[in-house]
Amino acid sequence: MNSRQQSLAEGMLYTDMYELTMAQLFYRMGMHEMKVHFEHFFRKYPDYGSHQAGYCINAGLEWFVDWMRSAHFAEAEIECLRSQKKRSGESMFADDFLKWLARQSPMEGFTVQAVPEGRVVHPDVPLTVIQGPLAMAQIMETSILNRLNFQTLIATKAARVREAGCRRLMIEFGLRRAQDRGGNAATRAALIGGADFSSNTGMSCALGYSPKGTHAHSMIQAFMALGGGELAAFRAYADLYPDDCLLLVDTINTLESGVPNAIKVFEELRKKGHKPVGIRLDSGDLAHLAIQSARLLNDAGFEDAVILLSNQLDEMVVWQIISQIREEAGRYGLDADHLINRLAYGVGTRLVTSRGQGALDGVYKLTAVEKNNEWIPALKVSETPEKTINPGFKHVWRIYNGRNHATADLLGLRDEEPGQMDPLELRHPTDRETWRIIGKSGVGRIEPLLVDIVRDGKFVYETPSIEEIRKKRDYDLDRLDPGVKRLVNPHIYHVSLTSRLWKLKRDLIKKKGNVSTI
Amino acid sequence: MNSRQQSLAEGMLYTDMYELTMAQLFYRMGMHEMKVHFEHFFRKYPDYGSHQAGYCINAGLEWFVDWMRSAHFAEAEIECLRSQKKRSGESMFADDFLKWLARQSPMEGFTVQAVPEGRVVHPDVPLTVIQGPLAMAQIMETSILNRLNFQTLIATKAARVREAGCRRLMIEFGLRRAQDRGGNAATRAALIGGADFSSNTGMSCALGYSPKGTHAHSMIQAFMALGGGELAAFRAYADLYPDDCLLLVDTINTLESGVPNAIKVFEELRKKGHKPVGIRLDSGDLAHLAIQSARLLNDAGFEDAVILLSNQLDEMVVWQIISQIREEAGRYGLDADHLINRLAYGVGTRLVTSRGQGALDGVYKLTAVEKNNEWIPALKVSETPEKTINPGFKHVWRIYNGRNHATADLLGLRDEEPGQMDPLELRHPTDRETWRIIGKSGVGRIEPLLVDIVRDGKFVYETPSIEEIRKKRDYDLDRLDPGVKRLVNPHIYHVSLTSRLWKLKRDLIKKKGNVSTI
Repeated sequence: MNSRQQSLAEGMLYTDMYELTMAQLFYRMGMHEMKVHFEHFFRKYPDYGSHQAGYCINAGLEWFVDWMRSAHFAEAEIECLRSQKKRSGESMFADDFLKWLARQSPMEGFTVQAVPEGRVVHPDVPLTVIQGPLAMAQIMETSILNRLNFQTLIATKAARVREAGCRRLMIEFGLRRAQDRGGNAATRAALIGGADFSSNTGMSCALGYSPKGTHAHSMIQAFMALGGGELAAFRAYADLYPDDCLLLVDTINTLESGVPNAIKVFEELRKKGHKPVGIRLDSGDLAHLAIQSARLLNDAGFEDAVILLSNQLDEMVVWQIISQIREEAGRYGLDADHLINRLAYGVGTRLVTSRGQGALDGVYKLTAVEKNNEWIPALKVSETPEKTINPGFKHVWRIYNGRNHATADLLGLRDEEPGQMDPLELRHPTDRETWRIIGKSGVGRIEPLLVDIVRDGKFVYETPSIEEIRKKRDYDLDRLDPGVKRLVNPHIYHVSLTSRLWKLKRDLIKKKGNVSTI
Repeated sequence: MNSRQQSLAEGMLYTDMYELTMAQLFYRMGMHEMKVHFEHFFRKYPDYGSHQAGYCINAGLEWFVDWMRSAHFAEAEIECLRSQKKRSGESMFADDFLKWLARQSPMEGFTVQAVPEGRVVHPDVPLTVIQGPLAMAQIMETSILNRLNFQTLIATKAARVREAGCRRLMIEFGLRRAQDRGGNAATRAALIGGADFSSNTGMSCALGYSPKGTHAHSMIQAFMALGGGELAAFRAYADLYPDDCLLLVDTINTLESGVPNAIKVFEELRKKGHKPVGIRLDSGDLAHLAIQSARLLNDAGFEDAVILLSNQLDEMVVWQIISQIREEAGRYGLDADHLINRLAYGVGTRLVTSRGQGALDGVYKLTAVEKNNEWIPALKVSETPEKTINPGFKHVWRIYNGRNHATADLLGLRDEEPGQMDPLELRHPTDRETWRIIGKSGVGRIEPLLVDIVRDGKFVYETPSIEEIRKKRDYDLDRLDPGVKRLVNPHIYHVSLTSRLWKLKRDLIKKKGNVSTI
């Protein structure tokens, strides 16, 4: 892709064609500047097949906002649209519409509220709420979904791997198997969700993180092809990086060659007053090799040396490795906890592709339109009750119990104030027979989740650093029920409606003659 | 991501950190300008779990070459590296190395050969061969793998969906669930592998294609919220796009509302002398709804109207839909083939995420180094025989039989000439007991697969258009055994070694004392 192509493909036309043909229709009908509400939310936690998430980590907002702030219909974009033809040979887009379009941008006239990045989020909760003129709100759909769906998916996977690995050091290694430039978004999302560092040099630098890495098999191979060997390669590496020496020990044979050679080099470093970092295992039975390598390292007095594991890791593989170590370490005279605490993880392909579930099902739905200065709730009734959207101009609160644990997310209408409700009535979004009552004494705190990002076309948000985003994440994770965090078959966190929102939804569905769905 | 961040994250530092720390080691050891050979190849066809590929479609080369031609260590890159610290607090990278680095680019001193995009390719065949100085060849690893692995993965999936759909019209719809900017690479790869068009406006334009689309549920919803209905929305759309009228019919109820309303509008169009395009089905039992919609359309005299299917399609879903139509259409008085021929496919999420296998396992391996003007084969012996690389400076030929069908890909050493071999001996890459002999009469044609891309730092390749790439693809697909193209449990295409390469590999393994692996 050359730079002209890249600029065209990443700017204002980073959208599906139908958004533009619909926008022209709205223009033609005089509906294009009608104020509307769109909400972005996802319907289901990622289901990885054999296991599933009980929460997601919200991510991607900053990059969407960056796009909003810079994208516009410049000459190249308008020319591209002007050249599109109908089947009849006429121009697909008329001059008056293109002229109007050239004056638009995704900031102008918009108000955006969103759940901040790093926060724990759940299905059906509006994560990003866009209020603005219909035609442009429609055109923004593809970009918002593209940015937020993917980073949330990857941040969630990263959080799961980190939890599985008992929050030990985790480095994202995925760029080589990532999705072209999508790899950079994956790196950012991994850093937000759970990775401490990334091997991705440029993106790490751009985000203010030190890129991390070890070395490759090819380094050993190059020495071997020249008549040297693994030991010579290790020595050369240790000479250059005496205090950062982490050696990959599986090029020839892990336990017979790699670890013994690494220990030789570590002993030499120690004599010179340096502290070796550790070893990396990249193939074979990682749990078994970690135990055996730890024994050899301990015998040589390197009890603190890190054992970094890599090779197709995900949350299930990490969980299995740790379980196996807990079972087997004692048999070899090792303390399992000590070994688990010295492990670190290089997580690549399966993190950046979200193994088991390669996409989040986030959607962007029209929930209200303004007519005669009044907001009219919009509804898409689906034959699947779970797919029937929650209508209207909404707000969302997180309810904490007395122990400061998050107990439910509550969706209500904008003029509602759950702090005033006693008791709180939480209605199941689709099942009329299910609700929950919480008396005032059961409510520790009620926190609004949406914050202002853009107000009347002006950016009003102070963009947090990745470090601040991570603090939010840990705060939220620590307030989740452990059952919700379970890797397999997690406990279902409640997302509920206020009685008023629930009644509005039911009334709207009834009006459309589809009573059976609620 | 702002533009400064983007430039840093997509330029020369689009690489893993360890490539740079290794490059410095090679520099320190005086090995950095040693000429080496790296080969990029994949080891296994994508395995989607319940099914697997029997071939891949090569893609991504042009974008890698574009990166090679533009990336260099400018001031921002050098500054970023200069700021990296060792644990001791010293700079990770020394000044002399950084000065040397600032003079390098991935073109200078390199020769690149590659299999052209669009070609059918198989495991273990070198797809891209890089010859150049060690340090820079190492630094290029991440970028080459990132560009080529992903586009090949997606082009392969697109080819499979297209074959499953009997090569009917297919539009890529995936940007909203794609991997941030990786979505643009997915669009290009989909166009190379099997999609006729894409909904991705900017990327389509940049590649010279017309972006395509229909309309969304939100268009109907907006009309409904204002007191109109589906019919009013359809009419407005048909008014504006009378010759491009493809209507989404499942917002309310497909067979009771959507299709009847569409037919009303189509009849109005017909009266005005226009030909409606067709309908889109986006939910429910697509096979059943296609049959029932076809009946209604036929009864109204719209036998040619396209029925475009979308909603989580992949090759297996498409295959199932077509199988079900073949079984059921007759019961409703429809000709199954006629119905199948009027189907079109909008394929999104599962195409751009390669559902079932989210990454191709492409690797980049050192296969030879130059010493005293002689190429010395490099070998990485693995405890898994299939992972032991094929050493040396190689060439690859495709062998066609008398019926002009591709019968095997043959890897040999650079100075070999399979045209001169009679008979041709094809050795299994790992199993010493398996080989195949083809007499001269059995060989129709022998075609070298690698072409020159860069020669001694000069770009010498005439970049083909996507249209030309697609012609190559169809040429190759038409020369594959139907068994190899089977969606499930495909026949295994032979990738073989010449006797000389096979002996070289065996001798090298023996020298390393690992005889048991071959």
